[in-house]
Amino acid sequence: MAVTNYPTINLLKLASSSQWLEQALNNMDLILLDHSHCELKAANNAINLMFRYPGYEKLVASMTAIAREELEHFHQVNQILADRQIPLAPLNSPPYAAALKKQIRSNGQERLLDCLLVGGLIEARSHERLGLLAAHLPDPDLAGFYRGLMASEARHFGAFWSLADTYFERSIVQARLGELAEFESELLVELHPEPRVHS
Amino acid sequence: MAVTNYPTINLLKLASSSQWLEQALNNMDLILLDHSHCELKAANNAINLMFRYPGYEKLVASMTAIAREELEHFHQVNQILADRQIPLAPLNSPPYAAALKKQIRSNGQERLLDCLLVGGLIEARSHERLGLLAAHLPDPDLAGFYRGLMASEARHFGAFWSLADTYFERSIVQARLGELAEFESELLVELHPEPRVHS
Repeated sequence: MAVTNYPTINLLKLASSSQWLEQALNNMDLILLDHSHCELKAANNAINLMFRYPGYEKLVASMTAIAREELEHFHQVNQILADRQIPLAPLNSPPYAAALKKQIRSNGQERLLDCLLVGGLIEARSHERLGLLAAHLPDPDLAGFYRGLMASEARHFGAFWSLADTYFERSIVQARLGELAEFESELLVELHPEPRVHS
Repeated sequence: MAVTNYPTINLLKLASSSQWLEQALNNMDLILLDHSHCELKAANNAINLMFRYPGYEKLVASMTAIAREELEHFHQVNQILADRQIPLAPLNSPPYAAALKKQIRSNGQERLLDCLLVGGLIEARSHERLGLLAAHLPDPDLAGFYRGLMASEARHFGAFWSLADTYFERSIVQARLGELAEFESELLVELHPEPRVHS
């Protein structure tokens, strides 16, 4: 059953399930720790894109801003973890991001387009899920923190979309985004047994 | 011949040569572009250390701060490049950093120590060389920019040293730092033909 009545970026093909929300709310310590890892991975992804496309001025400017924000959020989540006496630790990832990245085609320009759209889709899903946490967390401070992050995630989706729209024909972007969005939603139909932001 | 009378972090075994300074001052467009790459690589290195040691709270806190600062400097250098109409572009690296990284031993704790000391040495050398640019650049704005960065590089060296001193016996840190510093200086005895921050 989908959780409705919450804002989502409308390219997502399926809203997150109530099962995910319940699993997350019941395991917030793990979700916070996973969220910390997600922020660092997002910063790393932005930096990797800059290494791969060093001469793409607009991409470099956008990815610099995104990497800086992700690191700021990483710092903030780690402070919340420290306040709650949850130690930093390794955590295995759900299959979500790796499965999405496998969809990235290997040819030069196709690869760039897919990197941007996969990056954007992960931001869009994060926006939706952090929004669900913001709406349902009983702890007002933590709910407020997640409400604050939603705007960034939406902006980051916008940045990836805008880059795709800069470097490619819009019809090509839209067609490929539709394909990848279908795949992204299918990945989440079955709940991953371990509580994660993208389980 | 070494350029003397400029502050260096006193662990460096040899001061940079006047040949390096002359090469750099005569090729500032290339040095600026290489500097941009160096800042991004430094941010990436800090993030990679956090991925490798996710449960080391003090390391994560220090590397988060360093990665954020490196990205801020990356942004600043890219603005200077844009002001000077120097396009962002790929640039091959001098052998310096790769040669230093080859000295990192592969065992768990030895690896951590070496990663911290190599990171610190690169910061120490950057501090010295950016200081030379600050002292000798005829353009007062650019000289001021490099003077501003020197304090960060020194602080970053201090952060790497402090982490090594946290996780290892001081005598072990000092002995290994001495070995790596010898190697680091030897790498720079012969000037790399292409103008780079670490040529």
